[in-house]
Amino acid sequence: MSGPSNVRWDVAVVGGGIVGLFVAWRARERGLRVTVLDAGADDGTAWPVAAGMLAPTSEAQFGPAGQRAVELGLAAAARWPSAARELGEASGIDPGLRTPGTLVLGRDRDEAEALDRERRYREELGLAVTPLLPSAARRAEPALAPTLRAAMEVADDHSVDPRRVVAGLRAVLGDAVRAGERVTEVGPDGVALESGETVAAARVVLAAGAWSGELLDVPVRPLKGQVIRLRDPDGPGLVTRTLRFSSTYLVPRADGRYVLGATVEERGFDTSVTAGGVYELLRDAGELVPGISELVVEETLAGLRPSTPDTLPLLGERDGVMLATGHGRDGVLLSALTGDLVAAMLAGEDPGPPVAHCDPARFDRAGQAVPG
Amino acid sequence: MSGPSNVRWDVAVVGGGIVGLFVAWRARERGLRVTVLDAGADDGTAWPVAAGMLAPTSEAQFGPAGQRAVELGLAAAARWPSAARELGEASGIDPGLRTPGTLVLGRDRDEAEALDRERRYREELGLAVTPLLPSAARRAEPALAPTLRAAMEVADDHSVDPRRVVAGLRAVLGDAVRAGERVTEVGPDGVALESGETVAAARVVLAAGAWSGELLDVPVRPLKGQVIRLRDPDGPGLVTRTLRFSSTYLVPRADGRYVLGATVEERGFDTSVTAGGVYELLRDAGELVPGISELVVEETLAGLRPSTPDTLPLLGERDGVMLATGHGRDGVLLSALTGDLVAAMLAGEDPGPPVAHCDPARFDRAGQAVPG
Repeated sequence: MSGPSNVRWDVAVVGGGIVGLFVAWRARERGLRVTVLDAGADDGTAWPVAAGMLAPTSEAQFGPAGQRAVELGLAAAARWPSAARELGEASGIDPGLRTPGTLVLGRDRDEAEALDRERRYREELGLAVTPLLPSAARRAEPALAPTLRAAMEVADDHSVDPRRVVAGLRAVLGDAVRAGERVTEVGPDGVALESGETVAAARVVLAAGAWSGELLDVPVRPLKGQVIRLRDPDGPGLVTRTLRFSSTYLVPRADGRYVLGATVEERGFDTSVTAGGVYELLRDAGELVPGISELVVEETLAGLRPSTPDTLPLLGERDGVMLATGHGRDGVLLSALTGDLVAAMLAGEDPGPPVAHCDPARFDRAGQAVPG
Repeated sequence: MSGPSNVRWDVAVVGGGIVGLFVAWRARERGLRVTVLDAGADDGTAWPVAAGMLAPTSEAQFGPAGQRAVELGLAAAARWPSAARELGEASGIDPGLRTPGTLVLGRDRDEAEALDRERRYREELGLAVTPLLPSAARRAEPALAPTLRAAMEVADDHSVDPRRVVAGLRAVLGDAVRAGERVTEVGPDGVALESGETVAAARVVLAAGAWSGELLDVPVRPLKGQVIRLRDPDGPGLVTRTLRFSSTYLVPRADGRYVLGATVEERGFDTSVTAGGVYELLRDAGELVPGISELVVEETLAGLRPSTPDTLPLLGERDGVMLATGHGRDGVLLSALTGDLVAAMLAGEDPGPPVAHCDPARFDRAGQAVPG
């Protein structure tokens, strides 16, 4: 143990994933004394599986909740360049921010028509998208199959490497993070650990990802995603931009590695990798980038996205506990924003307007939407 | 170290894979004092990857070498029931012999015609095969896709679990097996270890699998095979028989696990698992058994088959060293026979006629076939 149990912390953060660590980092910057209780390598933890796309424009969904998510996502994306630079300087670990942008692709007439609708929707929202002829897309990314039918460039949608971000946050936070500490109970004055110890804190932050609903009465459920992590033995260069098509994406790292994802499955806490999941990812990606067949399969794994009924996170108090959870598919993107918003609330500052979209009071105790 | 280095053994076996262990077991039964030098978990070792098919009839190849391989394979298959029983009794570990037989399948007209040729060839050789209507095949294995076009039953082609066989052989041999000992030099009087130690022995057996050609001038090369190991969360029952189709197979274990294999690739000692390899196996198997999509992917891995120019093993002396290598795709099947033949030769007994097919003298020092 790194601290005696009779210390009373300003803040105890439950969960040492990318969201909990960002909150802890930003809270410490405000002078708060912070401890992070991290259960450790939980099977299904989202960040080691995540591709790390910072892609609010590509991911824009239709409908009012979709538009609120775009606002949040743009605010988060705007913070990443400085957050990545600060984190890299503070930790000495490059967070792997890459900025060659994203291509959204269509393989056949149906997908081309859908892509056209998606482009027009983004233009209505004032988002920066550029239609590309398939020939232009293939000049930009020569590995794309000749059968490509439609393409849209999103120059501002980037990516980071979540494993590097978490390594950096852990390095910066040092022994403020207590690894292997499983929290069994959460309350306004502190938390209880599986070991029997209680950790007293003036404020408790729940950032337990897909497991948040196990600790507090919040509408967060696990949403399974399988990914395949690939490596090009010839190094980087096969694909430079993030590629997206229907629900699949291929995100390049700087070193010739790629993350190919992701399934979206309602399977509770199941984290198995299935023949069907792996097959569909490889099939979809292989149709658009035939050259992936030569890539080495380094890992196949599944993560659990902490999802809410309206896909927006829960940021704010419930039952005296500060929530920083429910980030769904956008945990990496939103973590930089959530860190700032939640740390501001913990320090008694005004977090600014985006937090209104994330008010936990929009759901009742049964997880039903409260009429606004 | 389990033995002082000044002991002179009757037999030193180089390689603790399934062939080396079978030779050692059978040699010890003949009263010989045996030590096995096992390099340990070499990346690419064949037996942990192997499906364990005992399938000389399904695997029969055309041509004279193919017919010699059938003779050897049938002789080996005939020894497995008693070998499995003895090994199970001696070790207390069930080697997982399963005897529901094999179905060879065709998915389209081309494969149906090829399957018809294969069936007639086997009938000419006097092998027991039965053509089945697709409807009968689907009654036998209801998981087969309705698109099945042709089927042939091979009731005598069975399987064992190579991981259980090796565990049993290791248990029986005890500290006769020295794990983690990498042999750097092989000679008629003993071997040199990477540690600098020399192990003296009256007879040296080279059973180093795909690495045999690194130690002695023998025409053995690695032939890469990728496999996927699957598990049905609902337990056994989806598929009962071994299923084969073109170059792919699906081999059920008793516990709901399956081995899906295998690619055949000339890639030297490369053991990477590739996106293309995994994709093709899942695609082929999924076409015939759609239900595999729900199975859990437990492992993806690659093994190196120790292959000779004519696909038959090398059993007998070269340069004063006894060869027990070059078993190619049939190492598990042939291991029970090779153990007996090589142990007999080591003990000065007549190994019987099948050994003639495996005479190393059929190749010259450059690996070229010597006219007979």
